[in-house]
Amino acid sequence: MNFFERSLELHKELKGKIGIQNKMDLQTSDDLSLAYSPGVAQPCLAIADNPEDVYTYTLKGNTVAVVSDGSAVLGLGNIGPNAAIPVMEGKALLFKKFAGIDAFPICLDTQDTEEIIKTIKNIAPVFGGINLEDIAAPRCFEIEQRLQDLGIPVFHDDQHGTAIVVLAGLINAAKLKGKSISELKVVINGAGAAGIAIARLLKGIGAEEGDYYTAVKDVIVCDSKEIIHSERQHLNGEKIELLQYTNKDDLKGSLKDALVGADVFIGVSKANLLTATDISTMAGEPIIFALANPVPEIMPEEAYKGGAAVVGTGRSDLPNQINNVLCFPGIFRGALDAGAPRITMAMKLAAAYAIADSVAHPTPEAVIPSVLDLSVSKKVAQAVKNAAVKKVLNEV
Amino acid sequence: MNFFERSLELHKELKGKIGIQNKMDLQTSDDLSLAYSPGVAQPCLAIADNPEDVYTYTLKGNTVAVVSDGSAVLGLGNIGPNAAIPVMEGKALLFKKFAGIDAFPICLDTQDTEEIIKTIKNIAPVFGGINLEDIAAPRCFEIEQRLQDLGIPVFHDDQHGTAIVVLAGLINAAKLKGKSISELKVVINGAGAAGIAIARLLKGIGAEEGDYYTAVKDVIVCDSKEIIHSERQHLNGEKIELLQYTNKDDLKGSLKDALVGADVFIGVSKANLLTATDISTMAGEPIIFALANPVPEIMPEEAYKGGAAVVGTGRSDLPNQINNVLCFPGIFRGALDAGAPRITMAMKLAAAYAIADSVAHPTPEAVIPSVLDLSVSKKVAQAVKNAAVKKVLNEV
Repeated sequence: MNFFERSLELHKELKGKIGIQNKMDLQTSDDLSLAYSPGVAQPCLAIADNPEDVYTYTLKGNTVAVVSDGSAVLGLGNIGPNAAIPVMEGKALLFKKFAGIDAFPICLDTQDTEEIIKTIKNIAPVFGGINLEDIAAPRCFEIEQRLQDLGIPVFHDDQHGTAIVVLAGLINAAKLKGKSISELKVVINGAGAAGIAIARLLKGIGAEEGDYYTAVKDVIVCDSKEIIHSERQHLNGEKIELLQYTNKDDLKGSLKDALVGADVFIGVSKANLLTATDISTMAGEPIIFALANPVPEIMPEEAYKGGAAVVGTGRSDLPNQINNVLCFPGIFRGALDAGAPRITMAMKLAAAYAIADSVAHPTPEAVIPSVLDLSVSKKVAQAVKNAAVKKVLNEV
Repeated sequence: MNFFERSLELHKELKGKIGIQNKMDLQTSDDLSLAYSPGVAQPCLAIADNPEDVYTYTLKGNTVAVVSDGSAVLGLGNIGPNAAIPVMEGKALLFKKFAGIDAFPICLDTQDTEEIIKTIKNIAPVFGGINLEDIAAPRCFEIEQRLQDLGIPVFHDDQHGTAIVVLAGLINAAKLKGKSISELKVVINGAGAAGIAIARLLKGIGAEEGDYYTAVKDVIVCDSKEIIHSERQHLNGEKIELLQYTNKDDLKGSLKDALVGADVFIGVSKANLLTATDISTMAGEPIIFALANPVPEIMPEEAYKGGAAVVGTGRSDLPNQINNVLCFPGIFRGALDAGAPRITMAMKLAAAYAIADSVAHPTPEAVIPSVLDLSVSKKVAQAVKNAAVKKVLNEV
């Protein structure tokens, strides 16, 4: 069997990569009476009296919904909510493995922004957090933003998870070059959910006074057409906002024009866009994160030919795998442990620095930790919790 | 610690009576690649090609949502969705224990009929069935009815679960008296979700040609005011419908008037309504199912004083506990195993007869099986599956 046949076989055999586990046995009539009627009335009444007790007596505080409308699943596109289930189950599997969080997949039979928002609000009571997943841009931005006051963290992983891991890798790659990221000129190719979130995080947009971060020198974002600059027509709201903090010299032209003299290329776009020649036009020994999946914008071998110093991809079979799993379990663990009502920029930055710090001695082949390193999510969780609590203390 | 303190303590210690269990380990990069990116793309594509494959490659076929709006929780009333969580968790615990079904609690932050229906439709993709729970009447009737074409079973347990177990108990209690239920005159006190569903099931309303059942001779339903008869004013739609098949002599008067000469009393109302004297006005050796919780309409001792032959209650500390757990795990197991798109009257009747049959030798103290008897749900599941499949075969 080849790899894909093995995956099909595994999914067929399991019929669900996750299931429900009872945390108590029911052997006696007493067990039943305590867990169900009439004993269960007692925690119900306690919560009715004091809403915060929902965190004391129920699953809420450790439970996250992985919510998708199936509109932008992996590299597969708009395959709908049923076909998205295996991905959301996979995500739940990772939440449990890497952070002990009970995550449950919710795939929505609607792709209407208002209905998605309403549905998430309606199902929120049992969840301590909402992980938005594989929802198409620009809908994903509005959904996430309008749910920030729900009282529990709502986090679109395709945006921020990717951005946080990219920032972590960039911090360590810069270290290898003996530089601060504040000296770097970065080109991002792709202006969807991930590209825009990376640009925002690298520039510290949304950070508040007292948040610790370093912004990169300049970011230039290209969409599928060309560089996003002030004279572009028909830009959507998110791209117009990019103009406020990217491309400070208002450079015009193609992706290849943008690359000339740049220190960093970050691709969240599609396969085989660049060659060694393109890389050789960049500043000396550039950093290349080519994250298109499964085939990156440029393969590492080709990038090294062009003079790259560090290459990362999204692939598990290559060094420097930039994967959200380094972030989302720990960031939710930290947020849940802190009882944070939302995931702030300070918490995102803390996660990125914690991921970077978890590599004791960065090398060109290891600017970020292995996705299988269980200690990373623990460090991320602690850092995120500290950042959340610090924020609360500051506000008090 | 007393019983209620122990329940609080248990809930506090567990912080969720159920959790998520990973069904595969993630030790290697290969595991991660198979379960998540890139391997997960394969089952996604298979489902996108063939929607029915969602049952082959995902958790859907074994997963049920336990959905409540918190409006009619146990005997506690409208305590809201947060306070309802411990009950829905308890239900999920029972689903797993008694039928191996992965059930997940969904507590809705809305009590609007349209929004509840819409939300359930929106979250349906990951679920193989919907167990509606603790939703107030009359809203519960419309919600259940309008979701019957969702493509997966939608079953309001407070209605049908209770009705099915009552019918099972009645079949065996009648047997003890050497009678068929077709000879029985039944008085139901309570015209909410459970009362109306019991009346319908005892009369076989909704049964189709070829369905096997026996209807009781007559049912008289009382609400909190008096007997439901043709001259009552301001009856809601469900009560008006009752007039079509209950109270065939159009009896008028109070609950106590209704009881005179009746063979069976079924209470789904409130504590301490009846005395031994009331029971003594019924036909000889009546059957009393006093299901108000935690305090029944009449305690068994008092009912026996009045001449009762069989007494059942909802309580775990008394004989003949009429509890939905005898029904819902098995009925969903059977429906899921059959791939049934809805739970038909034939399946409900099959469940009732299977529960009754699972008591080999009924006695006055055991007209229904113990709630802890794990074999009951297996028998119910098999009977329900057979009924579902038979129906499909008949339709072909």
